[in-house]
Amino acid sequence: MNILAIDTAGRSAAVAVLQGDALLYESFCNTGFTHSETLLPMVDAALAACGLKIADIGLFGVTAGPGSFTGLRIGLAAVKGLAFAGNTPCAGVSTLAALAYGHTGQGTVVAALDARRGQVYWAGFELATHARLTPDAAEPVEALADFITNCKKPLFFVGDGAALCYNTFMLADGLLPCPPALRGGRGAGVGLAALACYQAGLATPPAALLPSYHRLSQAERERAEREAAPAAAATPPKTVLKERIV
Amino acid sequence: MNILAIDTAGRSAAVAVLQGDALLYESFCNTGFTHSETLLPMVDAALAACGLKIADIGLFGVTAGPGSFTGLRIGLAAVKGLAFAGNTPCAGVSTLAALAYGHTGQGTVVAALDARRGQVYWAGFELATHARLTPDAAEPVEALADFITNCKKPLFFVGDGAALCYNTFMLADGLLPCPPALRGGRGAGVGLAALACYQAGLATPPAALLPSYHRLSQAERERAEREAAPAAAATPPKTVLKERIV
Repeated sequence: MNILAIDTAGRSAAVAVLQGDALLYESFCNTGFTHSETLLPMVDAALAACGLKIADIGLFGVTAGPGSFTGLRIGLAAVKGLAFAGNTPCAGVSTLAALAYGHTGQGTVVAALDARRGQVYWAGFELATHARLTPDAAEPVEALADFITNCKKPLFFVGDGAALCYNTFMLADGLLPCPPALRGGRGAGVGLAALACYQAGLATPPAALLPSYHRLSQAERERAEREAAPAAAATPPKTVLKERIV
Repeated sequence: MNILAIDTAGRSAAVAVLQGDALLYESFCNTGFTHSETLLPMVDAALAACGLKIADIGLFGVTAGPGSFTGLRIGLAAVKGLAFAGNTPCAGVSTLAALAYGHTGQGTVVAALDARRGQVYWAGFELATHARLTPDAAEPVEALADFITNCKKPLFFVGDGAALCYNTFMLADGLLPCPPALRGGRGAGVGLAALACYQAGLATPPAALLPSYHRLSQAERERAEREAAPAAAATPPKTVLKERIV
């Protein structure tokens, strides 16, 4: 079975084609261009390199979150479009699980994405089996301290939140460095996570693919804050007034 | 410093662009097309994705062996050509070291390339530091037994000879599986190995790049066998006669 795997959850874009658990083609791009510019040319190049057409794909894998809301929508919408004609099975996988599936060894891997404001989206996985140790969470980076103290060592961090984690927890007590060039989300990891999802019977038709945002958008968060503080809402600051006028 | 890294030592081709130790772009292709068809379009796509020209590259990294003789010549000749105009520094790195640099963790990684006839090109590396534990060697796969018994565990195999190693040594005594999709030679690994080579002052001008074949070619081996057996050479078999006539 040919798998086309896509990741646009963060700043980088990644694409891979797998035949079962073997990697035919992979590309990764972290150059500051937007996914709307890079993704479809990358998919095109991947299929051309493998001599495949969309109709030859038996499973689409895509990172469904957590991640950038815009990035997730681009990846999911692209896969929905590509899979629609053949109603091909799709596996929406955790962006954090896909990061973990890109590595192997013994111990623990913590996948962390920079969620801004000192927070990370994070989860811990057993490195050898990629078994999940914690649910995907959005928390201040300091909240990882308990897990890091108690999990099986050695441990290393991957993802674009790895630098924040290393700066917070340093390299004490069984924490290993991970070279920056190896921290990014590989297409192969998305493909392997999608294959595991499919084998567990959890693939869906494209119409059922949904993002897992894991927290409210900035607009929703600000509205909730306004509504939870009626006194403040009575004398709203200028920016809020302006939003209402627009 | 921008690094362009290339691997054509085996059946797969890989290209990466790094900025220092950060990965900007990476592609991997294992689709049965020859390197002479795939390599330069992959280099072109990598540079275009990063908005870079050849003149912007400060270091070329290339796998110099072991590997397929033809593959090594394609990679080295391409890099010599690309680096010639600017006399840009080049780092010819061990194909096995480049495989090891694509992984991180704790324990040992054995990089193994299928050298045919039951042999592997292989070397062992410390996973966390990528420090070399054994020299690159071409040996029957059974010759790894001593190293595997005595090295620091856990251990996993990478490279296109990994399957032969797993079939020989199975998963006993601290040997971990490595998913097939993660065994291939990543461009990022070549780039990191090249950066380490450069930082150690071992980069060379392009003219000084040389392949490390690690064993005689089939033609040289057969000639040596003939010359070592003068009695047989006196009545050479038809195929040998034909070679001499041509």
